[in-house]
Amino acid sequence: MRDRSAFLADLIAAGLFVPSGVDGVYGRGGRFEEIRAAVEALITRRSINVDPERMAFPPLLPKAQLERIGYLSSFPHLAGTIFSFEGDESEALELERRVGEGEDWSSLQSQTALALIPAACYPVYPAVAARGLLPAEGVTVDLGGSYVFRNEPSQDPARLQMFHQREMVRLGEPEQVLGWRDAWSQQAVEILGALGLDAKADLASDPFFGRSGKMLARSQRSQALKLEVLVSITAEEPTAVASFNAHREHFSSVFDLRQPNGEQAHTACVGFGLERITLALLSAHGLDAATWPGDVTAELWPGRSS
Amino acid sequence: MRDRSAFLADLIAAGLFVPSGVDGVYGRGGRFEEIRAAVEALITRRSINVDPERMAFPPLLPKAQLERIGYLSSFPHLAGTIFSFEGDESEALELERRVGEGEDWSSLQSQTALALIPAACYPVYPAVAARGLLPAEGVTVDLGGSYVFRNEPSQDPARLQMFHQREMVRLGEPEQVLGWRDAWSQQAVEILGALGLDAKADLASDPFFGRSGKMLARSQRSQALKLEVLVSITAEEPTAVASFNAHREHFSSVFDLRQPNGEQAHTACVGFGLERITLALLSAHGLDAATWPGDVTAELWPGRSS
Repeated sequence: MRDRSAFLADLIAAGLFVPSGVDGVYGRGGRFEEIRAAVEALITRRSINVDPERMAFPPLLPKAQLERIGYLSSFPHLAGTIFSFEGDESEALELERRVGEGEDWSSLQSQTALALIPAACYPVYPAVAARGLLPAEGVTVDLGGSYVFRNEPSQDPARLQMFHQREMVRLGEPEQVLGWRDAWSQQAVEILGALGLDAKADLASDPFFGRSGKMLARSQRSQALKLEVLVSITAEEPTAVASFNAHREHFSSVFDLRQPNGEQAHTACVGFGLERITLALLSAHGLDAATWPGDVTAELWPGRSS
Repeated sequence: MRDRSAFLADLIAAGLFVPSGVDGVYGRGGRFEEIRAAVEALITRRSINVDPERMAFPPLLPKAQLERIGYLSSFPHLAGTIFSFEGDESEALELERRVGEGEDWSSLQSQTALALIPAACYPVYPAVAARGLLPAEGVTVDLGGSYVFRNEPSQDPARLQMFHQREMVRLGEPEQVLGWRDAWSQQAVEILGALGLDAKADLASDPFFGRSGKMLARSQRSQALKLEVLVSITAEEPTAVASFNAHREHFSSVFDLRQPNGEQAHTACVGFGLERITLALLSAHGLDAATWPGDVTAELWPGRSS
């Protein structure tokens, strides 16, 4: 298994990644996209969701929502907010001059109401809360593959600043929600195993900011709120390719999500990292999918004649 | 045909649009997504591209690229750049305090190397230029459906801040490129006509900023550089649902794209607005696709039994 920088160079040489000039932001060649789409479809085929509702959201959300859910306290370093130009013609000329002369033009940008979405599930909670009490069976939302952003430039090809989460959300009674989360973590190990990947589930924690963040991470671990499924992509330590998160009443306390009995609902989300799974397949089976083992390609492209 | 505000209210009531709290940013219900995906697949089936290369890009690009291509001179008002937090623990506490007390925290954000992508074709030009001279037949790139951003909050449901362009790019000799652009504009009128939409092609111009922008717009029109196909979505004036743009040597002069004979290549792009076409269908045929005319649904879902 190659190290990160060699693997990145291979991906670029093979046209699977197209460099943009900024670390962690790559275009994707057609053969990469074909695999990513097949992974997404496979997860849909092997979904354990019962009667899911389909929703999709653009990769932006109101900045006010990041404020309400506490994201800026826990992960200030990962958030990206959108700034734009609100000036008049003379300021536009000044902007043009600064750009032309290579000067800093950031002071001519002001903060808009929007931020990049850091987790695909975030828009779901206010959207479902707006309908009133949850039904007795709860709600399951399937968001499909959604672009999300993390401000963390890196030369690790598996640490992208913008990537697809194949995301699902469960809202309901505590046992419903936790059972769903746990069942999905087992299903993920099976799906990834069927793709010839050596996948392991483990307790995990989020990359909370700073010293107080270390305490939050310990607490999250001790309560088993976050599980991850890990796969080796490069010679370095294994990479999380899916995560399974129990939020307990966190989002319900912010958005007033209630069970039919009036108690706060619990929520959980499951996210598969589509680029990471694609990279794991390319690392394990080679950069040319035409040479992959037959059982792997049959799983990914069941309709294709072998 | 309803006016904009009534149509937006209908879309929300039907669960086709999910409000986010910010104008021009909506989630999309499952039935909206099903139509949008069918429109995208229809354009692929009826594509006139010969041997296209598939690439896909995330909705971010280097800020430096917007600077190089002159976007910030022509459209400073539409650009969005990404800012993030680069501070230490004490600044993080200050950020948390300001968020908690509802104060402005924009000064704790600094400009990153990234911007939101305003047109899906932009990353293609440097990517193709990096390969050297174009081949004799030129290059055709199919970007699929790609999210793009425009900073223009609006209550018009057809004017979204983040929407999908179904985008294609042609690079090559001047006649190759212009012929492709013109042929696509005719094909677009046919595709939209087959969907029961009254589509018309017309000369158009981009929304250049300010007084000098008016001159740029006139010049663009007089050279027929931009064509649009327009459809009525609401009771107000018709809306452009696709555009067909000849760039002449603009991108080649920036990125050194050359024909085999060493001359600067010409480029053109074609973009279908997938949300706008979906909205035009919902407006023309009703909010429930199950009640649409059989010839329209046969065009969109050819495999489906009627």
